[in-house]
Amino acid sequence: MALIVQKYGGTSVGSPERIKAVARRVAKWRRAGHDVVLAVSAMSGETNRLLGLAKEIQAQPDPRELDVIAATGEQVTIGLASMALMALGVKARSYTGAQVRVVTDSAFTKARILSIDEQRLRADLAAGIVPVVAGFQGIDEAGNITTLGRGGSDTTGVALAAALGADECQIFTDVDGVYTTDPRIEPDARRLRTVTFEEMLEMASLGSKVLQIRSVEFAGKYRVRLRVLSSLTDPDIPIEVEAQSGTLITFEEDDNMEQAIISGIAFSRDEAKLTVMGVPDRPGIAYAILGPVGDANIDVDMIIQNASVEGLTDFSFTVPRNDYARALGILESVKQHIGARAIVGDNKICKVSMVGVGMRSHVGIASSMFRCLAEEGINIQMISTSEIKISVVVDEKYMELAVRVLHKAFDLDQTPA
Amino acid sequence: MALIVQKYGGTSVGSPERIKAVARRVAKWRRAGHDVVLAVSAMSGETNRLLGLAKEIQAQPDPRELDVIAATGEQVTIGLASMALMALGVKARSYTGAQVRVVTDSAFTKARILSIDEQRLRADLAAGIVPVVAGFQGIDEAGNITTLGRGGSDTTGVALAAALGADECQIFTDVDGVYTTDPRIEPDARRLRTVTFEEMLEMASLGSKVLQIRSVEFAGKYRVRLRVLSSLTDPDIPIEVEAQSGTLITFEEDDNMEQAIISGIAFSRDEAKLTVMGVPDRPGIAYAILGPVGDANIDVDMIIQNASVEGLTDFSFTVPRNDYARALGILESVKQHIGARAIVGDNKICKVSMVGVGMRSHVGIASSMFRCLAEEGINIQMISTSEIKISVVVDEKYMELAVRVLHKAFDLDQTPA
Repeated sequence: MALIVQKYGGTSVGSPERIKAVARRVAKWRRAGHDVVLAVSAMSGETNRLLGLAKEIQAQPDPRELDVIAATGEQVTIGLASMALMALGVKARSYTGAQVRVVTDSAFTKARILSIDEQRLRADLAAGIVPVVAGFQGIDEAGNITTLGRGGSDTTGVALAAALGADECQIFTDVDGVYTTDPRIEPDARRLRTVTFEEMLEMASLGSKVLQIRSVEFAGKYRVRLRVLSSLTDPDIPIEVEAQSGTLITFEEDDNMEQAIISGIAFSRDEAKLTVMGVPDRPGIAYAILGPVGDANIDVDMIIQNASVEGLTDFSFTVPRNDYARALGILESVKQHIGARAIVGDNKICKVSMVGVGMRSHVGIASSMFRCLAEEGINIQMISTSEIKISVVVDEKYMELAVRVLHKAFDLDQTPA
Repeated sequence: MALIVQKYGGTSVGSPERIKAVARRVAKWRRAGHDVVLAVSAMSGETNRLLGLAKEIQAQPDPRELDVIAATGEQVTIGLASMALMALGVKARSYTGAQVRVVTDSAFTKARILSIDEQRLRADLAAGIVPVVAGFQGIDEAGNITTLGRGGSDTTGVALAAALGADECQIFTDVDGVYTTDPRIEPDARRLRTVTFEEMLEMASLGSKVLQIRSVEFAGKYRVRLRVLSSLTDPDIPIEVEAQSGTLITFEEDDNMEQAIISGIAFSRDEAKLTVMGVPDRPGIAYAILGPVGDANIDVDMIIQNASVEGLTDFSFTVPRNDYARALGILESVKQHIGARAIVGDNKICKVSMVGVGMRSHVGIASSMFRCLAEEGINIQMISTSEIKISVVVDEKYMELAVRVLHKAFDLDQTPA
């Protein structure tokens, strides 16, 4: 008999009917003899409603008080979910972050979990009770209510699994797993039965929205076995089917991995490119350009500096698209200071990335990728690589085409042997 | 400079605009150099919304979980009110019941306050911070969230004032004080500048809805100076005007009381009368009749047993009108057991009561009251008296007439000398 942490997101608990479905699913696992700890989000729409109220009062809401307000969303869900379990004859008891003692730092609205006191949860489990824990929230050492920031309920689920040494953390969501790419763009996209933490981290950072990146880091750090699966299936599907469903995020050294070289293709249209042309190639120039951009709280992603010609070089980088205008303004204002010839930019670009741990042991992946794109007449504007990822920047009009061509070329629609 | 606890009810914090008005009022008191502690209710409608959600899950919601859910209503308000104060440059900090440590017993949905730890609140006050405390809620010794039941925010305000030794507890509401009777029935009804705790208790128990009865008891027990006043006035009215507004509920021995004999006339249409006719006048008969009624959780109010004639007596009592049918059914089923001749009832009655500490030192009040009603042809069906109250039951069609006649006869429209 296993100890399972099940986390349900906002859509999965978005109405009393959905909460009742969650309870049926949990009851099924309990009947099979498993110990279950539940972590839940606020009902979908609730966090935005609360944030809207706060903004009617203060345009820039005080972070401490915003967390006091936001934390009520999950508090309502834990009460409702506990009631729904009791209505099915399952013993249950709700816990706020403060009641568990999910201790965090004091960075309101984006706190990090420092420790979890699992004593009460263990006592409940021993008594046959399902503890229902509010995701997304904690308490700091001084007793202030904190929240982990958007998506933080995933992190709560993983942290509970780590603290309890759970056999698996199941993240129930409105998709049924991690796909080789977005099925809305490539209908032949295939659900991955397993994916490694490294791959998942790359995909999350590249814009794949299935799991919040911090929760994946947390799971990797504490070696929590993590599964993403659907809350939209019939809650009464056989447990042996559900236990194998979705996508397992795991450690390649632990598991019989699929033998694919490439696991998935991620993409993002949320990109813009800036190039500082004709800057003197001297020490400190990168900082002179990127320092003011960072000071303005603009995230810089890919950075490329070409080899210099006659002491001058071109320096390019990408930023989130809605920071494009601001970044352009900053560069114009530092242009003279750094002695650049011109600033040019493009916000009609996209990033397409291939991710796979198999790249480590296979050469020639990058050149295959570039050849595929060239055969379709897609010009590559920037390239960036890591050990398990190759990203290219191309004109955004080619995004779907690039994804489909690569998906086909690397046989992602085929189940690996 | 005084220490004031201000409590605002659901209507007074019913929208972001109303919460901003509360903040302006508090800011005014702060500017005048007073220390203020705020206690707030859930935004009007919110508690019912949450209760509705719970009932969609469980027809009879689990009390512990219901309190977890209900407590979020006030938690939202404390955050918003703190933000509204900060937006005006007033330092503020919110506290849930658990954060203050408002310790209660474990009677979920109707808990009683056992103690309040005022240390953090005092530290805030010393630092010029307005603590904003969630009304209606607390925490039991085991760390469970509890609520005090409907109207419990008044009790929180009074309990905070008692714990802090505040100079006054101001209960802001949507009426501007306690009246000699309901102005909707008697347009000449007059606001009382002061009223004693005993009178207030009688009026509250007789159906006057200005203050929750438990909060009045609490204030009386801990000798908290209590003022009921309006949150609908301009928040910027001069502080010396506001400080004298509303109705002060006080101890007659402490204050220069108005010299009226009668302070007010309360009434209730929520009444029904039952009479058990021709029962043997023997020990235990009252219990034989009322025991089963009490077992059915029906509140019995007035009880009258006439002198017996030939060993038989008539036994009458009143119950809330919507328990009438149930009470009648119970009596029919015990009729044979107690050997009664007949059961008769009437649910078209009302209760009219005169309340006043002056009755203690004035004789003949009751006979004046009865003569007034007789002159209007109003038949008195039952009479019940206490030291400071006379209640009569009459046909409900005479209710408004009885209230107006008595209001006039006892000069309640005149300001006492």
